Amino acid sequence: MIRVAVDAMGGDRAPETEVAGAVQALATMPEDVAIQLVGRSAAIEAELARHPGADRGRLEIHEAADVIGMGEKPLAAVRKKPNSSLVVGLTLHKTGRADAFLSAGNTGATLAASTVLLGLHDGVERATVATLLPTGSTPVVMLDAGANLDCSARELVGFAYLGTVYMRDIMGIATPVVGLLNVGEEEEKGTAIVREAHQLLKNAPVHFVGNVEARDVYAGVADVIVCDGFTGNVALKISESLVDMIETLASGAMTAEVSRRLDAAEYGGALLLGVKGIVIVGHGRSSATAVENAVGLAHRFSVGRLVERLERGIAAIPVSAT
Amino acid sequence: MIRVAVDAMGGDRAPETEVAGAVQALATMPEDVAIQLVGRSAAIEAELARHPGADRGRLEIHEAADVIGMGEKPLAAVRKKPNSSLVVGLTLHKTGRADAFLSAGNTGATLAASTVLLGLHDGVERATVATLLPTGSTPVVMLDAGANLDCSARELVGFAYLGTVYMRDIMGIATPVVGLLNVGEEEEKGTAIVREAHQLLKNAPVHFVGNVEARDVYAGVADVIVCDGFTGNVALKISESLVDMIETLASGAMTAEVSRRLDAAEYGGALLLGVKGIVIVGHGRSSATAVENAVGLAHRFSVGRLVERLERGIAAIPVSAT
Repeated sequence: MIRVAVDAMGGDRAPETEVAGAVQALATMPEDVAIQLVGRSAAIEAELARHPGADRGRLEIHEAADVIGMGEKPLAAVRKKPNSSLVVGLTLHKTGRADAFLSAGNTGATLAASTVLLGLHDGVERATVATLLPTGSTPVVMLDAGANLDCSARELVGFAYLGTVYMRDIMGIATPVVGLLNVGEEEEKGTAIVREAHQLLKNAPVHFVGNVEARDVYAGVADVIVCDGFTGNVALKISESLVDMIETLASGAMTAEVSRRLDAAEYGGALLLGVKGIVIVGHGRSSATAVENAVGLAHRFSVGRLVERLERGIAAIPVSAT
Repeated sequence: MIRVAVDAMGGDRAPETEVAGAVQALATMPEDVAIQLVGRSAAIEAELARHPGADRGRLEIHEAADVIGMGEKPLAAVRKKPNSSLVVGLTLHKTGRADAFLSAGNTGATLAASTVLLGLHDGVERATVATLLPTGSTPVVMLDAGANLDCSARELVGFAYLGTVYMRDIMGIATPVVGLLNVGEEEEKGTAIVREAHQLLKNAPVHFVGNVEARDVYAGVADVIVCDGFTGNVALKISESLVDMIETLASGAMTAEVSRRLDAAEYGGALLLGVKGIVIVGHGRSSATAVENAVGLAHRFSVGRLVERLERGIAAIPVSAT
């Protein structure tokens, strides 16, 4: 029997969503799955009452009186709330009473509690959140995906190891290609930390392909995308945001429409703000149409007296714009 | 006449793309547009020869023998190459011989050269690259979009001012809403710099709505999205990458397919790597199906002995995974 402990209090609509999901899982998954719902029993029972067909024989409830909120400081919250659904659920896993644990709650707290309670693999200095992203073919793993906001170069290298092992030994890719998410392919690009990580990765025992720009992520140029958690979170969630927008706009001609809207060719390029002039920065990959439109943009800004209007607007701000 | 100086040597396929775009622009835009192609005259002329119909009357070539490459250090390159297309083109603008300048080349160099040559607005400490992103309704401006990789909290606040003025005075939004791109809505979230910026923005004379998660960017919850350039670059370019993938997969049922692939419900959640256990981190917004699938994931990992295999894989790495 595989017992999965579920933090029933974790998500934004907990425990409703967690309970419904658990019930669905039991109905559709192999007989050897059991679920432990961890949280406030009364609330969980109330939700379960709405699912009379639930297979209660494979469903346990584990009381946990406390909840760690999304805004709480991870480590402090974990220490302060030993009776939280997060700590109780992880303890079930730690003590072998559960085979796995899942939470849709505070990611940082989940990482911190997992590190403290479960411990790290030997040789691992920092745990990371790995997320699979789809591509045209096999998915790529991005890590960190939102838990470790500030990462040292050494930690980024650690993520490369973890991702390599994961893609090789779990996903079955013989020699996973590792890419460092960066703003350009050249090794001089990026922040000081990313540049340092690049140098370390060049000499690390992974198949390092170099920097990978975000525009190549979904093309699958690397199997493992390494980045700090702030960047990873943004990359992941903005993708979701984009798909949401696509669906909203959607129906039929949607691709073309979204593409048109997103395409550099439409907006022509990015504008430098803050300089006394009209400066548009196109993409390296600009098409002729993009250049054409950038000219149009420049024209519009010039006719519209962009510089003067910005100058006025900035001058009108009470404190200086710094 | 509106004279637009175009860095003909900037993009990845320069000058071919730049010349073709300029020719297109002249053919389709108002008669009051003139273009100055800046770069190696011979190469530009060779490209122009392929466009016999080009309106040469509104097209000038300005010789610039040097080119600043994508990999060059911005400020050093600008200082070292006074005869680069970038510096020559910007000088045309600075001296009033051109009304605008555009380049698809090295963004950092364009920013640096613009700052040095054109100067900053009074009260502005640092220029920024602003990019428009589409939403279901009016576009939002994201800044910095890739030029200033490391930003102080004060600089982020400066971007908020610039974005506010731009959206109000140029885009016509009466009271632009400013959001700080972050990994969570709570003000305790984020890196030290982002948290500091949050506090500064609360007291700044802009309409600050608080933190905005990347998943809400395309929903248009803010008119101005403030972030450092590394994050902005990734957010922007991964969006392009995603649209590219959509188009590749596309034809008809593509939305559903892409959505299915990207949706947290499909992959169930993110996996913590590095801890001795199976820990899946779902999204705060997880649906019941997402929870169900996360259970399935946990099940699969457990059956597949994820922990042991990872442990083995990490142990097999020559140097420690840190």
